Amino acid sequence: MTRIELARQGTITDDMHVVAASENVPAEQIRHLVAQGKLVIPKNNNRDFPARGIGKGLKTKVNANIGTSMSDCSTEGEIKKLDAAIRAGADAVMDLSTGPGREDVLAAILARSSVMVGTVPLYNAVSRRMEAGQDHAALSAEDIFGEIEAQGKAGVDFITVHCGITKHSLAVLTDCGRLMGIVSRGGSLLAEWIAKNQAENPLYEDFDRLLEIARTYDMTLSLGDGLRPGTIFDAEDRAQVSELILLGDLTRRAVKAGVQVMVEGPGHVPLSMIANDIKQQKRICNEAPYYVLGPLPTDAAAGNDHIAGAIGGAIAAANGADFLCYVTPAEHLALPGIEDVREGVIASKIAAHIGDLEKNIPSAWNRDRKMSEARNRFDWETMLDQALDPEKARGIRSRSKDKNRDVCSMCGDLCALKTYARAVAEHKTE
Amino acid sequence: MTRIELARQGTITDDMHVVAASENVPAEQIRHLVAQGKLVIPKNNNRDFPARGIGKGLKTKVNANIGTSMSDCSTEGEIKKLDAAIRAGADAVMDLSTGPGREDVLAAILARSSVMVGTVPLYNAVSRRMEAGQDHAALSAEDIFGEIEAQGKAGVDFITVHCGITKHSLAVLTDCGRLMGIVSRGGSLLAEWIAKNQAENPLYEDFDRLLEIARTYDMTLSLGDGLRPGTIFDAEDRAQVSELILLGDLTRRAVKAGVQVMVEGPGHVPLSMIANDIKQQKRICNEAPYYVLGPLPTDAAAGNDHIAGAIGGAIAAANGADFLCYVTPAEHLALPGIEDVREGVIASKIAAHIGDLEKNIPSAWNRDRKMSEARNRFDWETMLDQALDPEKARGIRSRSKDKNRDVCSMCGDLCALKTYARAVAEHKTE
Repeated sequence: MTRIELARQGTITDDMHVVAASENVPAEQIRHLVAQGKLVIPKNNNRDFPARGIGKGLKTKVNANIGTSMSDCSTEGEIKKLDAAIRAGADAVMDLSTGPGREDVLAAILARSSVMVGTVPLYNAVSRRMEAGQDHAALSAEDIFGEIEAQGKAGVDFITVHCGITKHSLAVLTDCGRLMGIVSRGGSLLAEWIAKNQAENPLYEDFDRLLEIARTYDMTLSLGDGLRPGTIFDAEDRAQVSELILLGDLTRRAVKAGVQVMVEGPGHVPLSMIANDIKQQKRICNEAPYYVLGPLPTDAAAGNDHIAGAIGGAIAAANGADFLCYVTPAEHLALPGIEDVREGVIASKIAAHIGDLEKNIPSAWNRDRKMSEARNRFDWETMLDQALDPEKARGIRSRSKDKNRDVCSMCGDLCALKTYARAVAEHKTE
Repeated sequence: MTRIELARQGTITDDMHVVAASENVPAEQIRHLVAQGKLVIPKNNNRDFPARGIGKGLKTKVNANIGTSMSDCSTEGEIKKLDAAIRAGADAVMDLSTGPGREDVLAAILARSSVMVGTVPLYNAVSRRMEAGQDHAALSAEDIFGEIEAQGKAGVDFITVHCGITKHSLAVLTDCGRLMGIVSRGGSLLAEWIAKNQAENPLYEDFDRLLEIARTYDMTLSLGDGLRPGTIFDAEDRAQVSELILLGDLTRRAVKAGVQVMVEGPGHVPLSMIANDIKQQKRICNEAPYYVLGPLPTDAAAGNDHIAGAIGGAIAAANGADFLCYVTPAEHLALPGIEDVREGVIASKIAAHIGDLEKNIPSAWNRDRKMSEARNRFDWETMLDQALDPEKARGIRSRSKDKNRDVCSMCGDLCALKTYARAVAEHKTE
């Protein structure tokens, strides 16, 4: 039986207890929300690591995309990125490798990762065809489901499947007048497949087969948003919303079949549309966990898209997004390097934390309280410990010329806190 | 006559024409808003540089705080920071020097800066006393006004004056139960002065004298928020709002006297309170330009406060804040170095740009459109030019292994745009 089925019959699994303890919420609450499909615990039956949850009432989680590309592929390099991501606080990694040696990279990541691991199985299936000099469209439904089955067996915890790219949603897209068409790799590959084969997307048409594989391993489905906007000019258009409506139906079918499911979201979204994007997904997908990429409230931050993504991500999380996919400084420009991975995770962690304050997560408020109390009493060790990025905070403090005094090198003896303390003391002796 | 007085009698000054041209709005609109005190052009009569405006209907501007501290003081170092800030796109700098040789630093900055320059004159007056081994409280009203007069004469374009620290607002603060008291240097110094001298703040009590000096040089006043919250736990409390109400009255008096005036805002503010903070200031201060520091929606981002500040700043700008004071990665830890200054300005520029999209500034939307159109046609030179930080974007692109191809090293031949183009072509030939 899957977690959803166990939860439905009233069983609290060990994983649910682990998640409850890590979030400091009652295990019964976890069970209840898993049964309803409002919270997922992405953990394949064939993998062993500390389970974590994503969804209602929990801390906002952060995913780091890693993986090779055709021009940049080294297993060792990707393991370094994995380590950097986890060290910086990532709650999940996705291996999006498309370069030669993909299977080795994924096996190494699955063996080493202490956090949940996701993939986009279509990438592997397509890359294999390309390496054989064949057309993507030569791919059969068997190839796709075979790859998903293999990855389930290998222990992948969650997979992105672009089930919402269908003849219907593509027809809506065609008439939408978008500035950019499809910016999702998986989405574009399936669009080409549908056009060339004059057939429906197997992941949609044979969704029940997908559910059967997912059930076997209790692998979580992440319904990809193949029609996500690639520019703020295309945000929330009919194509995007048409796909979301399909995903809402598939979410219902997955939960009914006992399969854990998340829904993916954009992308490029103007600031004032982000809150509505989140609320709309929650309504249409029966509060299934929402996994957003960014969102980026501007198209023009190339080189610093991690900052634009943190701005959008904080607002998304504050409005109920459950899972933030990081964006690195290399987004739109190049495959991220190790330092990009680190910076991307940290930026998303800051966004997630700010979202958690708005979600009234007690541990988030406790952290800020500890930080400010420590600041008020010049307790530098506690301040550096409570920082969301202690490594960088320690580095900056250590180059301060006042690092061995209780003040900072900005204000020195003109410290406002000390000056005000004297003012208060003066007031009391009056 | 000052700009406000000229504007009121219907004159469009040369500076107003320069501002109108740089913003691509009618000069008459600038005149009208200057007359009402809803837009300021901070430019001292004794300085010569291209005038820029701050306020209603204009692009959101960014300020970089530079300046020495007691433990870190070199004129050359500060000039390098000035250059880095302007190169990164700062619209203003404030020299907050407190170290020895402050006068030389300010003179060098005023001589070199191509953007408006602000100061906090109190710092110089107090630092001089401290260097002479005297108590802050020995400072006389004459010392304070004399310093302001000297800085006006030297050409300072705008000054922060903490006029809202009064016996009344301090009494409110005392009963407020704050986690942190006063975190503004200027605010704490005046609080101590009031307590020790048992006298009212000269900047409040003799506000007319301040207005007279400001009139002489058409120097813009920036009414400091000495009681700004230093932690999200203290945000929007009675102390903060009491001070704002005083500043609202002083704003009215300044505009009536023909003196340009801005109002400063926080600081540390939970995400969901930021929009209200901005709207409240606009209401209470008759839409005087609002100059916010951050705001920081979390206390725990030390080491990356530029990212937290960009999150808060984007929301603030989107809701009407006119002027963002940057926050650097060194905030709360150390005096910023040159790279911190660069990163701080860039983060704030991203926030300002996202705010400008929400303010419906046409040039902001044009930038994003150019970027996305270039992205869609693989026009890398235009993409790199349109990036808010072309320097960093070029650096990342140049290390991409696909830098001489039209794709990026992330997707390579699996480029979604190219794949979708093939799908569309297939569709058309059907």
